[in-house]
Amino acid sequence: MTVSDRWLLPDGVEDILPPLAGQIESLRRDVMDTCQRWGYQLVIPPLIEYLESLFTGTGHDLELQTFKLTDQLTGRMMGVRADMTPQAARIDAHTLGQEGITRLCYAGHVLHTRPRHMLTGRTPIQAGCELFGSASEAADMEVISLMLETLRVSGMPRVHLDLAHVSIYETLMGEASFDRDTEAAIFDAMARKSVPELDKLLGSCDPLSAGGRLRQLARVSGGAEALQEARKILEGAPEALLGALDQLGRVADMLTRDFPEISFGFDFCELRGYNYHTGLVFAAYAPGHGDAVAKGGRYDAIGSDFGRARPATGFSLDVRALVSLGERVVRRPGAVWAPADVDPALEGVIAGLRLTEIVVRALPDESDADPAAKGCDRILVKRDGQWVVDQLS
Amino acid sequence: MTVSDRWLLPDGVEDILPPLAGQIESLRRDVMDTCQRWGYQLVIPPLIEYLESLFTGTGHDLELQTFKLTDQLTGRMMGVRADMTPQAARIDAHTLGQEGITRLCYAGHVLHTRPRHMLTGRTPIQAGCELFGSASEAADMEVISLMLETLRVSGMPRVHLDLAHVSIYETLMGEASFDRDTEAAIFDAMARKSVPELDKLLGSCDPLSAGGRLRQLARVSGGAEALQEARKILEGAPEALLGALDQLGRVADMLTRDFPEISFGFDFCELRGYNYHTGLVFAAYAPGHGDAVAKGGRYDAIGSDFGRARPATGFSLDVRALVSLGERVVRRPGAVWAPADVDPALEGVIAGLRLTEIVVRALPDESDADPAAKGCDRILVKRDGQWVVDQLS
Repeated sequence: MTVSDRWLLPDGVEDILPPLAGQIESLRRDVMDTCQRWGYQLVIPPLIEYLESLFTGTGHDLELQTFKLTDQLTGRMMGVRADMTPQAARIDAHTLGQEGITRLCYAGHVLHTRPRHMLTGRTPIQAGCELFGSASEAADMEVISLMLETLRVSGMPRVHLDLAHVSIYETLMGEASFDRDTEAAIFDAMARKSVPELDKLLGSCDPLSAGGRLRQLARVSGGAEALQEARKILEGAPEALLGALDQLGRVADMLTRDFPEISFGFDFCELRGYNYHTGLVFAAYAPGHGDAVAKGGRYDAIGSDFGRARPATGFSLDVRALVSLGERVVRRPGAVWAPADVDPALEGVIAGLRLTEIVVRALPDESDADPAAKGCDRILVKRDGQWVVDQLS
Repeated sequence: MTVSDRWLLPDGVEDILPPLAGQIESLRRDVMDTCQRWGYQLVIPPLIEYLESLFTGTGHDLELQTFKLTDQLTGRMMGVRADMTPQAARIDAHTLGQEGITRLCYAGHVLHTRPRHMLTGRTPIQAGCELFGSASEAADMEVISLMLETLRVSGMPRVHLDLAHVSIYETLMGEASFDRDTEAAIFDAMARKSVPELDKLLGSCDPLSAGGRLRQLARVSGGAEALQEARKILEGAPEALLGALDQLGRVADMLTRDFPEISFGFDFCELRGYNYHTGLVFAAYAPGHGDAVAKGGRYDAIGSDFGRARPATGFSLDVRALVSLGERVVRRPGAVWAPADVDPALEGVIAGLRLTEIVVRALPDESDADPAAKGCDRILVKRDGQWVVDQLS
């Protein structure tokens, strides 16, 4: 690398400049403040951990997405966090170890070996909330409501919400007991929503068998009518499956009542990006964008990886990606230009103004700079022996 | 690693829990807001870069402190940032590329292979300001003043400031032209302030030679009288050396005038932790702590590594370490406990309260929780058909 290209950044890695950096910081604060006003307490999980702590649950996505490091102090393998949700679960299960219900929120950089999708690079700024210790449906409802509230704060009151339930796929697959290879092939085809492949893999199954039901469910998605259709396909299926559908129905009722401006739909075999989830899951989409702007759901299994089983649900979003959608109206603060004059009275005026305002003080070698180009809309001038603030013409 | 110790964290890596996490977030915001009110614009440099971009200047400390990663997209080596100052310099020199004076600020996690000193772990939260494009002494003064202001905001109005000038050591060493090994031995002894070793290495030098002057200067530190002594030792030395002493004197005058509550001292051969600095450097110490709480100085050479030479000065601090000193008075916000009752009127009251207050809404399985244990000092109760806020007795 020569001097002339030392400034090159890796793909999917970027410098965030003014004013975008300020907008991201502002949204980060608003999202955190919203979560805290709902009773979620801020934690700061570490940037690195031992690999064993970072990889929990069943999915392998996280493992592929995690950068690995050697700990020089012990020679053991560590990783840079690719997701903060398992960290929050570890903190709840072990570090905090509270009885009863614990609500946590967090915000920080995560690192991915490859960009996850179009909106994000390899260093998203993840913010999220997690609710531990309650298996109640009210907990799921609280988390969905809070996610929608943070999206409203982010300038997106009208997202589309996809609702799914991980246990439907898992229960049917468990019942069908395919061999390992077939199972992997079905998972893969399902994640890509490839109906022809699923037809090939499951076409020979009885329509009332688990495999037959999976094949039919994969074709069904949409609003209230899709839920009806799923009920028909699962008629006579085990109680747990019907219970999952009922729960999806109750969430839909809550959304209709409390968030009439939100559109929603069901997807009974959604698998993409849910690594460790076990129950109700949800993802919010902005109009015209194929990648979710926020997502979450229930994951009751991580806590036991850290020695304490805890029901859990939560959501997270990428602050950087949200700001790039540009839906948020941002008021840019004005600033006052102060001259380089040596004058004790001027020092006092600047100190006073800086309690509430941005004041850019010219350096002696900066006196010919253009205040407007420095983001200033006003200027300190001396008139009749007094320092006053004038509008910049 | 068994399930039972999956929660183990590497040495120097920690979970930051409530309420400490909230205090860190609050100080991070206050420091950033202070910098922004002085006209410094926020940038968000990336967590990772190619190694060549991260290692600039002359010191090797940064290289040893940087965790290395392989970029799966290109096979090239990347590093996790161990210091954000060189990143800001790259942004100024290349990404922004503005003419005239540029003021930038930033805050974020950095990662060190080993803890730098007692107060920090391996994942400090670095915040800082950098001023590019001015070689004027006024720029150094502005940066020192802003650093002292951020420390005041952090609850430390009375720090001790160590002032030094990197060019004194470098000019004398250049003049003396020792062989490489002797040079390294002197640097090492100087960094550890080992007077006996310096006597051994430099004892044979003429007192008026560069080596002899170095040996004498190494014994001198302290306030105004130290500056007088240094002037005597450097009598007849090249203009650049005397200029450095004069500059230290003018900074002392400014401090005496503008920050009478600050104590300060000089150290003419300070080298520790200044990796890429070229001129006036400074470090602030809290009473009773041997490690600096904030430090900075002039580094005019990094820009040229990125294709554009730019004079530069700045400072940075570790927000996590500052909070751990506990000098800041933190008002803990109260919170309101709301019952799980299903009541549309209650929903409205909670939504209203949450515009300004923290409201913890009980879940149905949380109704026997102790509101005080959840950080609440008030509770929503229904009285005469109205929801009102009561103090928690």
